[in-house]
Amino acid sequence: MAPSFVTNGDVAAVKTTPFAGRLASVYSEVQTSRIDHALPVPSVLRSPFKIVDGPASSAAGNPDEIAKLFPNLFGQPSSMLVPNGVDNIGSDQKLKIGVVLSGGQAPGGHNVISGIFGSTLYGFKGGPAGIMKGKYVELTADYIYPYRNQGGFDMICSGRDKIETPEQFKQAEETAAKLDLDGLVVIGGDDSNTNACLLAENFRSKNLKTRVIGCPKTIDGDLKCKEVPTSFGFDTACKIYAEMIGNVMIDARSTGKYYHFVRLMGRAASHITLECALQTHPNITIIGEEVAAKKLTLKNVTDYMVDVICKRAELGYNYGVILIPEGLIDFIPEVQQLIAELNEILAHDVVDENGLWKKKLTDQSLKLFEFLPQAIQEQLMLERDPHGNVQVAKIETEKMLIQMVETELEKRKQEGSYKANFKGQSHFFGYEGRCGLPTNFDASYCYALGYGAGALLHSGKTGLISSVGNLCAPVEEWTVGGTALTSMMDVERRHGKFKPVIKKAMVELDGAPFKKFASLREEWASKNCYISPGPIQFVGPASNAVNHTLLLELGAQA
Amino acid sequence: MAPSFVTNGDVAAVKTTPFAGRLASVYSEVQTSRIDHALPVPSVLRSPFKIVDGPASSAAGNPDEIAKLFPNLFGQPSSMLVPNGVDNIGSDQKLKIGVVLSGGQAPGGHNVISGIFGSTLYGFKGGPAGIMKGKYVELTADYIYPYRNQGGFDMICSGRDKIETPEQFKQAEETAAKLDLDGLVVIGGDDSNTNACLLAENFRSKNLKTRVIGCPKTIDGDLKCKEVPTSFGFDTACKIYAEMIGNVMIDARSTGKYYHFVRLMGRAASHITLECALQTHPNITIIGEEVAAKKLTLKNVTDYMVDVICKRAELGYNYGVILIPEGLIDFIPEVQQLIAELNEILAHDVVDENGLWKKKLTDQSLKLFEFLPQAIQEQLMLERDPHGNVQVAKIETEKMLIQMVETELEKRKQEGSYKANFKGQSHFFGYEGRCGLPTNFDASYCYALGYGAGALLHSGKTGLISSVGNLCAPVEEWTVGGTALTSMMDVERRHGKFKPVIKKAMVELDGAPFKKFASLREEWASKNCYISPGPIQFVGPASNAVNHTLLLELGAQA
Repeated sequence: MAPSFVTNGDVAAVKTTPFAGRLASVYSEVQTSRIDHALPVPSVLRSPFKIVDGPASSAAGNPDEIAKLFPNLFGQPSSMLVPNGVDNIGSDQKLKIGVVLSGGQAPGGHNVISGIFGSTLYGFKGGPAGIMKGKYVELTADYIYPYRNQGGFDMICSGRDKIETPEQFKQAEETAAKLDLDGLVVIGGDDSNTNACLLAENFRSKNLKTRVIGCPKTIDGDLKCKEVPTSFGFDTACKIYAEMIGNVMIDARSTGKYYHFVRLMGRAASHITLECALQTHPNITIIGEEVAAKKLTLKNVTDYMVDVICKRAELGYNYGVILIPEGLIDFIPEVQQLIAELNEILAHDVVDENGLWKKKLTDQSLKLFEFLPQAIQEQLMLERDPHGNVQVAKIETEKMLIQMVETELEKRKQEGSYKANFKGQSHFFGYEGRCGLPTNFDASYCYALGYGAGALLHSGKTGLISSVGNLCAPVEEWTVGGTALTSMMDVERRHGKFKPVIKKAMVELDGAPFKKFASLREEWASKNCYISPGPIQFVGPASNAVNHTLLLELGAQA
Repeated sequence: MAPSFVTNGDVAAVKTTPFAGRLASVYSEVQTSRIDHALPVPSVLRSPFKIVDGPASSAAGNPDEIAKLFPNLFGQPSSMLVPNGVDNIGSDQKLKIGVVLSGGQAPGGHNVISGIFGSTLYGFKGGPAGIMKGKYVELTADYIYPYRNQGGFDMICSGRDKIETPEQFKQAEETAAKLDLDGLVVIGGDDSNTNACLLAENFRSKNLKTRVIGCPKTIDGDLKCKEVPTSFGFDTACKIYAEMIGNVMIDARSTGKYYHFVRLMGRAASHITLECALQTHPNITIIGEEVAAKKLTLKNVTDYMVDVICKRAELGYNYGVILIPEGLIDFIPEVQQLIAELNEILAHDVVDENGLWKKKLTDQSLKLFEFLPQAIQEQLMLERDPHGNVQVAKIETEKMLIQMVETELEKRKQEGSYKANFKGQSHFFGYEGRCGLPTNFDASYCYALGYGAGALLHSGKTGLISSVGNLCAPVEEWTVGGTALTSMMDVERRHGKFKPVIKKAMVELDGAPFKKFASLREEWASKNCYISPGPIQFVGPASNAVNHTLLLELGAQA
């Protein structure tokens, strides 16, 4: 039977939604079908369950300091939901719960919210600022419905504010009291979950009834630990980027004349780049953590690329695909040094046009600065973020590397060791991956995270992060529980004080994903082993694929 | 039932292919599933058919000149395959057929080749140069199999050479004779099909048996006429870009602080931009043909954008999505003039560093040149393509417009008519759309085009372009035939001689797609009517969607 070709998104198939949240929107056929996609649920959530606590926990580092910072919460056990409990903790008990999205978008956030069950639910608008200002909306089933399995954070939007000062904590207390909140679910990254724990500690210290549960969100994949195997959004974002990389690879092989330099989002850690490499098999992949560990210079990185390009030229391949993590230049010690010096100068000095300010740079940094292409020099001088840091996303590392590779290849051409013609094409894949429709994996994972967060609140827990495990098994077999946020913490000294932090989980060079990559990259460099994952499917082949990072990490643990 | 999560592209699911063509490759699960996807075929091709000729044809313009240029082919009727013919023309007859891919990649090219049936098939490698140099490979069923429904042109690769000089025609004749070719299928855009027709005329004039059939290929969508409703690849490329645009829209709405300027591939015509606009409903869309028709200046375009941005700021929306066709600056008369002058200067003069060459510009062009941001000035001075033209794909129009919008908004801020903060984010979606896995539509369309080309060759036709029609109906009901290439031609005067050309089909301002867009764009500008089409699906909802351009154009015809 031939399929019948019908319209997508046109008059017949699209209805203007009557929904509260996305009033002015219309939905595509795929979006509409996703709303009604039935989400599988871990079997432990389907019948009465009880919560079982584990042993007392410690901290990721400096437990004494963490104990001082969290006197009420430190040492809390992690919790696990187990079936067939007799004391089924009040899934019929109605709680008042607030929820907030914090930081950058990640596919699946809406499903976490849909998963929080059986309660009066308030959504704080625009991130933590919504808590402080008391800006919220009541999230009824009707309100939530059109956002089921949809990308983005636009149901209640997000923000990057933090609840930090005593006054801000006071504002949060007032909002919690005014809404008579039994609980608050904070959906965010490492910083936001640290903040969630401080809020939980604060509420507990004042004997307020409001409990706080975190949920692990970030496409960067750098918020994870043994009990929290991945952060949501990572799966979808990597698969969107891998689709594009796979297409570019086929283009490279078909055209036979371009090197595509692809910069991938993921500020601090290179998990996204590593996962995309495992999905697509590029010729060259730079992992920031390796660059840092080996103390490589920009020249080393350039030479590595040029060596591969020359070798490929000998094999007759004058094309290729190169993956570069967004944060690469942050990982290069000499660049870090330069940026630190520039940050100082920009914070305190007038940057004069005749370049006198450059005299404040150390010799090594000045040399590096002058070695960089002009466009990059300009980008390094751009405005800082609110924390005074270079906005790495604005630095076009991929273009910088193309220029540096060009220069080096020209040299080798003159020496006679390179005879081909090099043409670089630059790409940055970032924003298009943060708000895609969540994969089946992220959709189910987020729903379970939200459901779990609700269950933890119902059982009176606070200061935990919702933890869903056994993720390579079918959804029914997933485990659901909560991990003590203090157990993930260490301290950093800032302005003479200890500050609690959840350390970002960086790519581990002795971890299974990196080791697999390292064992294959030489073959990928000289041969063309490109894989094109294709667009994310919601039905049929590959629609329930687990990403490589999870498979390899959980496999190594097992 | 919860889905079982299994690996995609990892050890278990991926096999190293034993196939001839993609030896070193491995396939993703989606790629593998696409190889075995059963292609529906128009019912006319399923049972015995005969070919019926229509009335004599003319030309798109200057028929007298076309008649002189194609004395053997001019006036040929178009042909249509009809069922139930008694004189079934030799589908069991074995012919020797060559096939060549010409120009840029478009998803579906491999399926055209798979569609050419029941013959000894030779694939010329690297485009028309393969014909001239006699570089070819025999395309057996085993060789073709792994490329079924796959993106890219890597089965035999493509090239941009033309068969133009008497010597080159001679080389083509020699190759045709050596391989004893009954036919040649040329898969390409407007230029390549013009070339195919010249080759057909040449072979016919010399009484050679080799016949030539063209196939309409280009993601740009600018090779079409009444009988050839679309070129293949347009559907897939637009859907890939629309997926990304839809994601960026959700990101814009979630973040609430960025204007995303998205430049879309499609050099001459703005069909891709228009189709993507119809699929996604951006706030601002620039259509090059409208800019040209209304003789707009860069300032006009900037002001239009700024007006919308200011109006949206009043409504509380400090974000948005703006689509810009790659060829925009080519459409602006004042920029065309500047580029023409620069082309002249670069072709004949030394561009001195102290800028004396600028004196050769007219006043108006100099003023415009100095008005442009420096990065754009530099890009306008970059190396030319082999035809001496600016490489438009290298000009970052989206960044130029961001800078110009910034400047104008700053002015309005000082005047008090704009109070918000503007942040622009630039994107270029190009290469990632040319080599994606073809949509079900393009897969079926290409297979039918190839099948039709084979049928036309079997029936002794030459100088036709394979034409598949009724494309909004189910595949069974599609029509298959051939259109006289000379009927699509006009002449252009170049170097004092008439040259035949198939005129690019530009966006028609009184055509149904543009009119629909124009009737809605004001609403899209001030409201947020974003649609997120999501990733291309091969199974289930939207997997057989017809694009808007086809629906509207065929609907208007009906």
